[in-house]
Amino acid sequence: MRATLIYGAGDIRVEDVPYPRVQDPTDAVVRVVRSCICGSDLWPYGSRPATEQGDRIGHEFLGVVEETGPEVSRVRPGDLVVAPLAYADNTCVFCREGLHTSCPRGGFWGADGVDGGQGEAVRAPLADGTLVKLPVGEDSELLPSLLTLSDVFCTGHHCAVTAGVDMRTTVTVIGDGAVGLCAVLAARRLGAERIVLMGRHRQRTALGREFGATDVVPERGAEGVARARELTGGEGTHTVLECVGTRPAPEMAFGAVRDGGTVSRVGVPQYEEGPIGPEMFRRNLTLTGGVAPARGYIEELLPDVLDGVIEPGRVFDRTVGLDEVPDGYRAMAAREALKVLIAP
Amino acid sequence: MRATLIYGAGDIRVEDVPYPRVQDPTDAVVRVVRSCICGSDLWPYGSRPATEQGDRIGHEFLGVVEETGPEVSRVRPGDLVVAPLAYADNTCVFCREGLHTSCPRGGFWGADGVDGGQGEAVRAPLADGTLVKLPVGEDSELLPSLLTLSDVFCTGHHCAVTAGVDMRTTVTVIGDGAVGLCAVLAARRLGAERIVLMGRHRQRTALGREFGATDVVPERGAEGVARARELTGGEGTHTVLECVGTRPAPEMAFGAVRDGGTVSRVGVPQYEEGPIGPEMFRRNLTLTGGVAPARGYIEELLPDVLDGVIEPGRVFDRTVGLDEVPDGYRAMAAREALKVLIAP
Repeated sequence: MRATLIYGAGDIRVEDVPYPRVQDPTDAVVRVVRSCICGSDLWPYGSRPATEQGDRIGHEFLGVVEETGPEVSRVRPGDLVVAPLAYADNTCVFCREGLHTSCPRGGFWGADGVDGGQGEAVRAPLADGTLVKLPVGEDSELLPSLLTLSDVFCTGHHCAVTAGVDMRTTVTVIGDGAVGLCAVLAARRLGAERIVLMGRHRQRTALGREFGATDVVPERGAEGVARARELTGGEGTHTVLECVGTRPAPEMAFGAVRDGGTVSRVGVPQYEEGPIGPEMFRRNLTLTGGVAPARGYIEELLPDVLDGVIEPGRVFDRTVGLDEVPDGYRAMAAREALKVLIAP
Repeated sequence: MRATLIYGAGDIRVEDVPYPRVQDPTDAVVRVVRSCICGSDLWPYGSRPATEQGDRIGHEFLGVVEETGPEVSRVRPGDLVVAPLAYADNTCVFCREGLHTSCPRGGFWGADGVDGGQGEAVRAPLADGTLVKLPVGEDSELLPSLLTLSDVFCTGHHCAVTAGVDMRTTVTVIGDGAVGLCAVLAARRLGAERIVLMGRHRQRTALGREFGATDVVPERGAEGVARARELTGGEGTHTVLECVGTRPAPEMAFGAVRDGGTVSRVGVPQYEEGPIGPEMFRRNLTLTGGVAPARGYIEELLPDVLDGVIEPGRVFDRTVGLDEVPDGYRAMAAREALKVLIAP
C-alpha cells in the first residue's frame, strides 16, 4: 500500500509499505477513508534533520475497520471509526480522568513502530480504547467535521476547556490557523460572548467571525496586544487561547490576558523556556493547556457534529489524494492552504 | 517614632521617622501592636543595591486604629485591625473577584510613599477597604495567629486554593519555611489527606507534621523529586505547592507533579524565565499562583483562627523588639529563626 513518510525538512515522500496486519491481540487494522495534515506536522517539515530512513507521519484519520485482534470487542470489521491523535487503553486511571495522552500503555501515531495516519491503512493498537465508532457511512458529507474530532477541533476545545471558558469569560484567541479557528468555535460553543481573534489572514479571520469571533485584531506583537487590550477597556481578557506555539506567543498571551486570568496553549511549544517571572507572579496569571487528550472529548462533541450544530470541518480548504500529500505540506507551509484533507 | 528602613543588602536600620498622620480622607493611622519579618523581605536583604536613602520595609502588621480620615467609616479609633500585605479599595471589580493585589487604586506597603509595617505606626491608605477589624483585645494570645492573616497563612492558603487542593488531591509542598508550613496547614484544612513536605530542617518539618504533613522528604533536587514520586507510586501528586521561589524550584515542582496536575507557586520568583517547554506541554501541567490577595481571604479564615481550629501563629519561633529587628533579619537569613515576630 501507499503511505506518507518524512525523511527530513521539506522532504515528504509517498511510498509503498507493507499492508498492516494485526500484531497484538488488541490491534485493529483500519482502512483510512480520510486523513489530513496538522499544523504540528509542519514543525518536523520545517526543521527535521535529514535521515536515510523515513518515518511514517500523520495522526488524524478516520476509516473502516477491516480486521480485529481476538481481544477487540467494541469495534468490528465494517465499522466506520475515528481515531484520536493518541492511542490509549481508555481504562487506566489517567484515561478515566480524561487524560488519555498520559495513558501508560498509550502512545502517538507514527512513532515506536506504530503507523502514521497519512496512508491507505493503519494498525491501531488498543483498538477498543482508541477507536470511536461513527454512526454514518463512509460517503457521509459529515466526514470532514467528524475527522476534526481526531485532533484539531478537540484541540481547540481542550484549549477552551482548560482555560475555563464559559459564558462569563472574555476570550482572546492567538492564531488564525485551523486550531485557532477551532478554538474560536469551541469557545463560542461553551458560551463565550466576547471572542477577540488575533490573526492577519483575511480569509481565515472571516471564517473565524463565522465561527463566533466578535473582534479581529490583525496587528502583531506588542501592537496587537495593545489593540486587544483596548477592546477590553485596557484590562485584557479573562482567558487567552494560545494556538501558535512559537516563542513570541507566550509573551503575547501574557500581554493580552487580564490580571488573575488564564493562558491556555495548545500550539506545541517551539521553545524550552518562557517568561514566567515576577510579572506573571504579581498578576496572578495561570498557564495551562497541553497536548489535547482528544479521546476523552469525542463522545461529548460527536452529537453536535452529527446534528450540524457545529461545522469544524470548514477549516479544510483543500483536498488531495495520497500522491499529492507532499504538495499539501508545501501548500500548508506556504499558508496557501489552511488545512489539507487527504482522501487516499 | 521608630521604624525599620533598608539601605541595601544586609543593611537594616531602625531610625527615627515622623509619626504618620492622615493625609488623604480615606486614610487611617494605625499604631502597630505586632509586626513580623517575611521570607520575601529576605530577598532585598540579600541583594538590594546600597542607597543613601533608606526605604521603609515590612508588610505584615496588626494594630490599633488611632485616627481616621473623614471618609473612613468601617473602622474607628480604638479598633484592633489586621492589614493584608497590600492595601486595596475592596470595591473595584478586581477586589470584588477577590484579586485585591490587582486593585488599580491599591498598592504595597513600603513603596510609593506608603509606610512599611515594621515600625511603631503606619498610615494605612484606603482604610475602609484594607483593614479588617479583629474581635479581640490587644492582649489576646491569638495575636500571632491573627497576624499570619496579613500574609503568611493567607499565602499558604492562596497556594492551596489556586492549586485546587481538596479532599481528593494529593499534595507536595516544596519548602519548609513559614509559607511552606502554612501551605501544609492550609492544604490539610481544605481536606487533603496525603501531604508530602519537602524540607530538610528537622524542627520545621516536625511542625509541618503537626500541621498535617503525612510524609517528609529531606532530599534535595532530583533525588528529592524521585523520593517524592516514589511515595505516590511513581506518578507524582495532583498538586505541588511551590513555596520557595528560587530557580531550581519550578524544575522540582514540575518533577514532583502528576501528569495533568497543577503547580502553584507563592514564593516570589527569583528568575525571569522558566521551564515551560514541550515536557510541560506533553504532560498537560498547569502553573498558577502568585502574590496572595490576602484581603480576600481574611473573613473566611478568621473564624478558624478565633476558634483555635488552626494555629498558624506557631510559625513564629522568635520575638524581638523594634530595636532588635536587624538581628531578626540576620537570624532569619541564617535560618536560625523560622519567622520573627516584632513587638514594637
